[in-house]
Amino acid sequence: MLEAVREALDGALRLYPDPEARALRARAAEVYGVPADHVMAGNGSDELLVLLLRATVEPGDRVAFPVPTYSLYETLVAVQGGETVRVPWTPEWRLPAALGEARARVTFVCNPNAPSGSMLAIEEVERFAREATGLVVVDEAYVDFADDHAMRLVGRLANVVVLRSFSKSFSLAGVRLGLCFAHPDLLAGLRTVKDSYNVNRLTQAAGVAALSDLAWMRDNVRRIRATRSVLTRGLEALGYLVLPSAANFVLARRPGIDQRATWEALAARGILVRHFATPGLEDALRITVGTDEEIGSLLAALAARA
Amino acid sequence: MLEAVREALDGALRLYPDPEARALRARAAEVYGVPADHVMAGNGSDELLVLLLRATVEPGDRVAFPVPTYSLYETLVAVQGGETVRVPWTPEWRLPAALGEARARVTFVCNPNAPSGSMLAIEEVERFAREATGLVVVDEAYVDFADDHAMRLVGRLANVVVLRSFSKSFSLAGVRLGLCFAHPDLLAGLRTVKDSYNVNRLTQAAGVAALSDLAWMRDNVRRIRATRSVLTRGLEALGYLVLPSAANFVLARRPGIDQRATWEALAARGILVRHFATPGLEDALRITVGTDEEIGSLLAALAARA
Repeated sequence: MLEAVREALDGALRLYPDPEARALRARAAEVYGVPADHVMAGNGSDELLVLLLRATVEPGDRVAFPVPTYSLYETLVAVQGGETVRVPWTPEWRLPAALGEARARVTFVCNPNAPSGSMLAIEEVERFAREATGLVVVDEAYVDFADDHAMRLVGRLANVVVLRSFSKSFSLAGVRLGLCFAHPDLLAGLRTVKDSYNVNRLTQAAGVAALSDLAWMRDNVRRIRATRSVLTRGLEALGYLVLPSAANFVLARRPGIDQRATWEALAARGILVRHFATPGLEDALRITVGTDEEIGSLLAALAARA
Repeated sequence: MLEAVREALDGALRLYPDPEARALRARAAEVYGVPADHVMAGNGSDELLVLLLRATVEPGDRVAFPVPTYSLYETLVAVQGGETVRVPWTPEWRLPAALGEARARVTFVCNPNAPSGSMLAIEEVERFAREATGLVVVDEAYVDFADDHAMRLVGRLANVVVLRSFSKSFSLAGVRLGLCFAHPDLLAGLRTVKDSYNVNRLTQAAGVAALSDLAWMRDNVRRIRATRSVLTRGLEALGYLVLPSAANFVLARRPGIDQRATWEALAARGILVRHFATPGLEDALRITVGTDEEIGSLLAALAARA
């Protein structure tokens, strides 16, 4: 097998990758309408989160984010020795006033947010960033499933960073690729802490290919959004409250009823959803939008329990 | 193109990689005769160097290494806020006594060393490690071109770490893969600072394939060692002093004669070698062992200047 891979991909295997990922950044710049010097590639957006913290946070610096959100933020801040400030979202999943009052060195805003699927208006993000004293990192891992995005803030506001992932809408989780969009001065700081060859050649090539075939991604998104509607209506028919989702998953609640047993019953049938032990989320399931068939099995299994 | 790649490699693109790289580590454990819990995979051995420093070095901690050596060590220590202790190799490229006296938290020993190509006896490395108070990281990026290696120290000495790269002997620089062999307690510390999905699926698959086709690597090594002999004799015939090399490059000196002009003249003909502004190395060229044809062109170009 190696011989075949080797022959087919020769240079991609044998030669070191471009440490600056120029072809990929040039393509991203075209697609997203920002200068190429405002783009950096990472070994997944997780690596970009690490680089952002390593480049900007000293031990004891505050890093804030509304919760619940992507659980990795807290882990990474702890590794970096920063002080985490967790501020609950408002009941309407809007930015809480206490978030700005934290005057954090870095604020993470996952938009759309996980696990809620809720989406802030970009105007709200912009207002927040204009008043923020530190960096505002808008994690747009799920944004292709939404109707808007914050890319227009990049370049206009020097403290705004936008992160994108190829793991969701492009279905390229296996290759590990994320992009960071930010002011060149900030990216220069990230470069001082990044491995030269952080993104391998195959991944860079996959990224260029993905950004040159946006129709594939848009079809993928269209299909998932359609199935998301079916899933939402089905869950509502079963008595769940479903938060309007701008992502490729939905958060479905049975207010006051712990969903742990349901989660276990689904798992026993090979149907994998997420349940959170987090206070305030015990009555919720996070359900990723799969194929129509998978969603059908899930709804049938839930109906059988009802 | 994406569609073809997508179809061919489907799962490798769409699914997240195994964060523990279990198949790869199992294969490496078999090949290198160590338990799988003594193995960790990295996004190139450069990432493993970063993780080792992040997991063990606090600001101000000393990190020592004999110089000249791989220039990245100094950069990474500076990023981590450690204090670099650079100790010159002995004239015979042996470990200097001052290296142990530094009582460093971490000591890097590149073996075979770059850019000298010199190789320490493993017994010398073992004696050093037994007396060392800190971690001893044996960077074996080039060791497949040598006659021995330090893998037998892993497991016997809890403070010894061995690093391997797939960029040289396996000719897989494009995929970014390194392996770290060390005591499980140390690897547990590294895991706390590593990205979950640090090694993508294609790279993990390439690593398994490479370790399942060792004959390819050994043929590659045999060819390079044969060409290395031809290159060494050719350079000696032109009046260069060539350090016996255990790597895939040689260090060739004209004692007291700066080789910068020669380096420039070669570059003008499209022949790329390394010249170092480092004090004490100005009279040297580091020449990577290429194909027989490339070596022929190089020797002819040098002869024309002589």
